[in-house]
Amino acid sequence: MNAPPKPLLSVLAGHPVWPPPVWLMRQAGRYLPEYRAIRAEVPDFVALCLDPVRAAEVTLQPIRRFGFDAAILFSDILMLPWALGHGLAFKEGEGPVLPKLRDAAAVDRLDPTQVRAKLAPVMETVRRIRSGLTAEGFDATALIGFAGAPFTVACYMIEGGGSKDFAATRALAYADPALFQRLMDLLVDATVDYLSAQADAGAEVLMLFDSWAGVLSPTLFRTHVIAPAQRIVARLRVLHPGIPVIGFPRLAGLMVGEYAKASGVAAVGLDTGMEPHAAVALVGGDVAVQGNLDPMALVAGGAALRAEAASILTGLRGQRLIFNLGHGIVPQTPPDHVGALVEQIRAA
Amino acid sequence: MNAPPKPLLSVLAGHPVWPPPVWLMRQAGRYLPEYRAIRAEVPDFVALCLDPVRAAEVTLQPIRRFGFDAAILFSDILMLPWALGHGLAFKEGEGPVLPKLRDAAAVDRLDPTQVRAKLAPVMETVRRIRSGLTAEGFDATALIGFAGAPFTVACYMIEGGGSKDFAATRALAYADPALFQRLMDLLVDATVDYLSAQADAGAEVLMLFDSWAGVLSPTLFRTHVIAPAQRIVARLRVLHPGIPVIGFPRLAGLMVGEYAKASGVAAVGLDTGMEPHAAVALVGGDVAVQGNLDPMALVAGGAALRAEAASILTGLRGQRLIFNLGHGIVPQTPPDHVGALVEQIRAA
Repeated sequence: MNAPPKPLLSVLAGHPVWPPPVWLMRQAGRYLPEYRAIRAEVPDFVALCLDPVRAAEVTLQPIRRFGFDAAILFSDILMLPWALGHGLAFKEGEGPVLPKLRDAAAVDRLDPTQVRAKLAPVMETVRRIRSGLTAEGFDATALIGFAGAPFTVACYMIEGGGSKDFAATRALAYADPALFQRLMDLLVDATVDYLSAQADAGAEVLMLFDSWAGVLSPTLFRTHVIAPAQRIVARLRVLHPGIPVIGFPRLAGLMVGEYAKASGVAAVGLDTGMEPHAAVALVGGDVAVQGNLDPMALVAGGAALRAEAASILTGLRGQRLIFNLGHGIVPQTPPDHVGALVEQIRAA
Repeated sequence: MNAPPKPLLSVLAGHPVWPPPVWLMRQAGRYLPEYRAIRAEVPDFVALCLDPVRAAEVTLQPIRRFGFDAAILFSDILMLPWALGHGLAFKEGEGPVLPKLRDAAAVDRLDPTQVRAKLAPVMETVRRIRSGLTAEGFDATALIGFAGAPFTVACYMIEGGGSKDFAATRALAYADPALFQRLMDLLVDATVDYLSAQADAGAEVLMLFDSWAGVLSPTLFRTHVIAPAQRIVARLRVLHPGIPVIGFPRLAGLMVGEYAKASGVAAVGLDTGMEPHAAVALVGGDVAVQGNLDPMALVAGGAALRAEAASILTGLRGQRLIFNLGHGIVPQTPPDHVGALVEQIRAA
């Protein structure tokens, strides 16, 4: 007898599933005491991402608690620039700190030939998660691998960290389009290579996080968000025909339709601000949607949480929906609220 | 003989004007050496906002250079919480610093009865700008008064300053909707009072800046962005029947259509990410649009600037457009680039 298909994979393959599959961005994270315990053993965040035993363990923690329909590789979108030799450190309370890429010499110094070797521990993590899911009987839980989308990775490399509006990145895109494109081309290739290795290691779905897509004008959005996603998805489709890609162009706003239709993704992530009906109208019926509960509603819990979740469940009933947050879960989230949310979704 | 109508007022009254009227958010600002000279005389920013001679002077500076179709009162959206007695300081390189409003007692301490008296110097500034425009022969330049929209003002009052995602504000909106609504009601009343005083003093157009509207879920956007705008516009329409309101719900994304249709504004501001065609399709024909050049394209100048400006001018040709940026002009903008942009628009 065949196992029933995993709900997440069914939705991505084109079949509506109700109640919808659910997982939460940053579901393996500081809101869980068992995560904080592991984190205390490895204070360096990059070291934790390169520790297959612990990275697999924290990936599985939220699945054990909540039985989510997806486990997502515990890693960071900045592991790719790290593997390219760009440098990366996480400072407590400051977020990531990187060198600032501003000229051709800095692009020349990036070394894509080392990516697979340097990220070999991440692939080992993927294998361990996959076998852990099987060993622990989570037969309905799909494994998602991921990478930062080239534009968002470029944002951090150019700014040297986070930013309110990534002004230096946009300035470079306008002032030196050839250099910017060369960086993007290199990142597209490295991203395909990295995601392909994750698929080889057992990832069943791949996700592209373009967290800062929303800072771009429509012109630059087409060039640096849609076109790279299109190239990455097309090449992955040849290398891994059965593996769907979820794209998350955060704050894409009115561009979400063009992105969904042109990029070739199987599902598009919606951020918290996206009105479900309006989003589905733009996205069209060929692409599933994932999202988009406000993480702060999950912090509040109670009536506010129930109302916000109900508005998504009602608004998207019958659609191909993967229930998720509109942004990552925040550390002050009470785990009980996550449990209540999952219960509400499963009763929908 | 009657003077020809001001292009900005024509567009707001329902008539397409081509080439479109143009002004730029933060057009009176640090990118101008003549502004920096005045600023050096009054290091305290609040003091400058309360200095009618100098505030009127910096308002007129960009009109003299570029002949913009609108002058906008030099002030700050946080002057209203300051006038309510909430406290406000600007720290160099840090932006605004305010006490953090988190409980009912803090709302009780706000005193709306003092607003008109404390902001009397701002009304004197409005009168001086209006007479200055006439005295200097800028007969086609309309005067815009403004206020922060209640939600954005509440954001700063609750967080105590700027924030990446205004998490504490959203948390309070979910956790204590009654308290949040009481603050919003107070701010709606105070905003009507403040804008009405500006209209009495000579403002010909009023603008509501809702800079952080985009952090809200659709549910909260309706309650705290659309509903307050609706109430403010309706009451101003009674008090000042001829004065149009421009609303700028920044990063509204897919909610821009609901906002435009329900709020009663005469024009809606589009941020940089808004695709012009898609925005007009959602906004509909009854409301003009204002925007939305990327301020970083203005920094870059040259071919990048021409291409981005052309894409807006082409995309919105024939529409009721007020050309503007999608966000405020940044200090590193070369004034020559502004001149080149105005020339390109006037030749469109």
